[in-house]
Amino acid sequence: MRYSSIPSAQMVVQHCKAKKIKNIVISPGSRNAPLTIDFSEDPYFKCFSIVDERSAAFFALGIAQQLHEPVAVVCTSGSALLNYYPAVAEAFYSGIPIVVISADRPLYKIDVGDGQTIRQDKVFDRHIGYSANLRQDVSHALPRVKKYAPEYLSGGSLEALQKEVQQDNDEELNIALNLALRLKLPVHINVPFEEPLYDTIAEPTVRANILRDTDVSEWDFSDLGTFADIWQTSSKKMVLVGVNPPNAVEQKFLDVLASDPSVVVLTETTSNLHHPNFFSSIDSLVAPMEKSDEADSLFSRLRPEILLTFGGLVVSKKIKAFLREYQPDHHWHIDELKAFDTFFSLTHHFKTDVNTFFGHFMDGIRSKASDYYAFLDAKRSQYEARREVYLGQIPFSDMLAFEHVIRAIPKAYQLQLANSSTVRYAQLFDLDPSLRIFCNRGTSGIDGSTSTAVGAALYSETPTLLISGDLSFLYDSNGLWNNYIRSDFRIVVINNNGGGIFRILPGQEETENFETFFETAHEKNVAHLSAQFGFEHLLANDLTSLNDRLKDFYKKSDSPKILEIHTPRILNNKILLGYFDFISSRRLI
Amino acid sequence: MRYSSIPSAQMVVQHCKAKKIKNIVISPGSRNAPLTIDFSEDPYFKCFSIVDERSAAFFALGIAQQLHEPVAVVCTSGSALLNYYPAVAEAFYSGIPIVVISADRPLYKIDVGDGQTIRQDKVFDRHIGYSANLRQDVSHALPRVKKYAPEYLSGGSLEALQKEVQQDNDEELNIALNLALRLKLPVHINVPFEEPLYDTIAEPTVRANILRDTDVSEWDFSDLGTFADIWQTSSKKMVLVGVNPPNAVEQKFLDVLASDPSVVVLTETTSNLHHPNFFSSIDSLVAPMEKSDEADSLFSRLRPEILLTFGGLVVSKKIKAFLREYQPDHHWHIDELKAFDTFFSLTHHFKTDVNTFFGHFMDGIRSKASDYYAFLDAKRSQYEARREVYLGQIPFSDMLAFEHVIRAIPKAYQLQLANSSTVRYAQLFDLDPSLRIFCNRGTSGIDGSTSTAVGAALYSETPTLLISGDLSFLYDSNGLWNNYIRSDFRIVVINNNGGGIFRILPGQEETENFETFFETAHEKNVAHLSAQFGFEHLLANDLTSLNDRLKDFYKKSDSPKILEIHTPRILNNKILLGYFDFISSRRLI
Repeated sequence: MRYSSIPSAQMVVQHCKAKKIKNIVISPGSRNAPLTIDFSEDPYFKCFSIVDERSAAFFALGIAQQLHEPVAVVCTSGSALLNYYPAVAEAFYSGIPIVVISADRPLYKIDVGDGQTIRQDKVFDRHIGYSANLRQDVSHALPRVKKYAPEYLSGGSLEALQKEVQQDNDEELNIALNLALRLKLPVHINVPFEEPLYDTIAEPTVRANILRDTDVSEWDFSDLGTFADIWQTSSKKMVLVGVNPPNAVEQKFLDVLASDPSVVVLTETTSNLHHPNFFSSIDSLVAPMEKSDEADSLFSRLRPEILLTFGGLVVSKKIKAFLREYQPDHHWHIDELKAFDTFFSLTHHFKTDVNTFFGHFMDGIRSKASDYYAFLDAKRSQYEARREVYLGQIPFSDMLAFEHVIRAIPKAYQLQLANSSTVRYAQLFDLDPSLRIFCNRGTSGIDGSTSTAVGAALYSETPTLLISGDLSFLYDSNGLWNNYIRSDFRIVVINNNGGGIFRILPGQEETENFETFFETAHEKNVAHLSAQFGFEHLLANDLTSLNDRLKDFYKKSDSPKILEIHTPRILNNKILLGYFDFISSRRLI
Repeated sequence: MRYSSIPSAQMVVQHCKAKKIKNIVISPGSRNAPLTIDFSEDPYFKCFSIVDERSAAFFALGIAQQLHEPVAVVCTSGSALLNYYPAVAEAFYSGIPIVVISADRPLYKIDVGDGQTIRQDKVFDRHIGYSANLRQDVSHALPRVKKYAPEYLSGGSLEALQKEVQQDNDEELNIALNLALRLKLPVHINVPFEEPLYDTIAEPTVRANILRDTDVSEWDFSDLGTFADIWQTSSKKMVLVGVNPPNAVEQKFLDVLASDPSVVVLTETTSNLHHPNFFSSIDSLVAPMEKSDEADSLFSRLRPEILLTFGGLVVSKKIKAFLREYQPDHHWHIDELKAFDTFFSLTHHFKTDVNTFFGHFMDGIRSKASDYYAFLDAKRSQYEARREVYLGQIPFSDMLAFEHVIRAIPKAYQLQLANSSTVRYAQLFDLDPSLRIFCNRGTSGIDGSTSTAVGAALYSETPTLLISGDLSFLYDSNGLWNNYIRSDFRIVVINNNGGGIFRILPGQEETENFETFFETAHEKNVAHLSAQFGFEHLLANDLTSLNDRLKDFYKKSDSPKILEIHTPRILNNKILLGYFDFISSRRLI
């Protein structure tokens, strides 16, 4: 095994290894050669090569999302680094620890007109857990240091100065990586390298000083009794769950919540929580109340006294609008790290994980008589019956396609949903509890869904299906430009030839320029891209062909597959809005 | 014509119009609807719709590069904005005024877990001329303002408060746009919008208060005599020109420089300066000296007493290395705005444009006897003869393909060069003086060359050719995903199935992991992408087929065309290095 002769490269890699950061996504370059050498030579690491840094970072995010551990991305100097930013922001808001490691030029080369040179340090400062800007080694490339950065060499012997550099770098690396692990946030490590960049040696010359994180504060649950008392006296308690990994909450706690008539549990597709008593299609529940003549009285009835939330960001706009308008008396959020005041009524943050919380909390509470659950359950029965009728009478469209696609997904698949129509449509249907469902809801961007899905599929025990709209899919087509796509990877692209969501979102008006600047109507299909990236391509444009294509779609194959479903651009919007009207209508069916 | 009912949207658009910012590149979204409505409804503006914001910003950069005027990009809230960053950094270092206008959510929605919401203000602070963060109107969406931001409504009447908001926004917009115009830097204008977003009215409700820039300082040339004296007494003067627009320097000045035996003018492909006495292939000049046994003595002879530079960044690594090692006594840089100390020897910055400078400066100087020019001219004759021989004996390769491609470019074309092999290869050959040549050398990234070229072609009087390597082309394939590609647009992709440059750059060693992590070897071709984006695709894989394809390549056609040239991956590097060896060799030919 060879090592880069540059001490700071050795140190970065040793720190990553000590902190068990195994997966390293490298984008090609020359300045990052010292890091590439050390990561790729050590069989401890699993290295991946992805050219487009935007895609590389989302790919890393996908791996980290699944493994619940930090994944590193490594790039060369210059604008390469900036292409990581969309994924860094997503990681920041989703709480996924991406470790960005950027090679930099020596400080004296910044802002003097050198190529591939920008101001890299602190470039993500608005959305990063920590920015570590390492110091340049003085023992490496000594003639250049002497010539161009002589000030580095004053104040001590070369050995002493180099030791100081290493101590500082150790400290920065310990802070950055411990924080990534503890706070589950992205961090940025910037490493300046002087030429020569490719020299290697047989044994490392430095030994990193690894510090474990000592900041492990215990949750103080001594005041839990007060909260339990409030809970116990309340007859309207709403539990709302955002993005949540599968199997994160113990079943016994879910069962307690599900059997309490004073509790309603509202889940989203991305909550990965299931119980027959939970309410999984929030928009279908809320829309008929919203449209009712008695909206205010229904919403007042729905308004919880206590709102208990956990998990990440909530997709449903309707529930957010409702809770902001009809605010609970108490909003408690459970999360080890952070609590967003999403409904402008947050009153307490339980700083612990959900199971620990419920383990202590449920000891002190009992089920309470109430008609709160029954009220919502009746609403559900209503929309469920009407939904079936509606689906039976609508023509081929996004909505009908979604229903058939979702129904055909094999058990236990990993399901990745793109933004934004896709995840919204998925919310309208009941998904099989065996599915594990993910979506980039930190920033809800369309910029990296495909790359994320490809990365997330990598280590999955079961195959992965990505469902995407056409704009999202075309945006991130570089997500397919790598050698790590499993042959059992499947993509469904609902192609309505434009940003269908802009026909869905409330407030939209048809203007002369609507098709061009809002909907972005286009004529592209994905057959050529499928061929470009070695996918088998299947096409459906009505219900018969869709169901026919779905028959063999999930069968074992040598190549991954894309199923493209063409739906009528103009019609989709009317059918979706019609759905909410239909389930809200009082007419007998 | 309709206007958004939101005052700040009206103001942004009025300011852009007043400052003659005509070209607006819009990416689809909902939050930016008020801006999209006002820009697209007013026939004064030429609006473009591009989905991928990364590509949209480079497309805008291409337009601005050609028109020498600011171009705006408009996006929705969230990570969309971050995708502009690579182009913003390129614009920052290339001095191209991109005006980034981002729609934002109201302040109270930031960091509360809302979708598509990040910390947008000051997000480009490391690489931006100015960040204007506008205030939210209080007169729009009053019920929401009352509910969610009641603090906005204290301290005066609604009218007075709204007037204050408008005054502040006017001030910010004046600062940002005047600075973009004066300093030719990108600026960022962030505009928070409260819902409803789509309401329109028949007449604008506000009238922006436009201020012209008053900060026009005149160049003080009173001390020019001192510099003329130094110039006059020096017998070794080197003029080195970086990125420079075509026709930027008056011919009479060039003639004076070209006829002075004490002056050598070194130009680059991107300098767009031509004279038979200028030296246009810097690397071919420097390499034989570098490799000579008498390198030190040759370089000492070459070392200028005065180095006079103008234009943007310099591509040639060899000249940078030489000048940093053999520093001139004086380095003077001419530029209205900025001067990089690229060679760590900058002694004076003439803050004016090149023609004004020469207009005053040349009055006081005369030609001076010296053998400086003759010394370098002899070196040129040497490499030119040997280059011809070398080209006659090498097999088909990147180098030979470049020579034939370059020779076949029709007169007066616009030539866009991708980074980084492409622009380096182009430096080895003499390009026809009628060509106008451009390359993104601000950050020298591979992330936006295609998008830039498509934008730059838009208003060009002559057709445009983009030459790109395969990695650069595949990276920015979304550059072709728009409806604005001219049918006379041509692309040559030199496909050596990997990042050939990593076999070229000095310092590279063949390691076990080289092909994967440095060269990024791949098997992709561009036929499918050509089909995806409606290009005619031509393929060449030897000299005969190349010359055959070139015959009709530039003929008028209904569709734009891509000529893909396959070259042997392994061989290219050896041939390029062999070229420098060959022209450096003392052997008779």
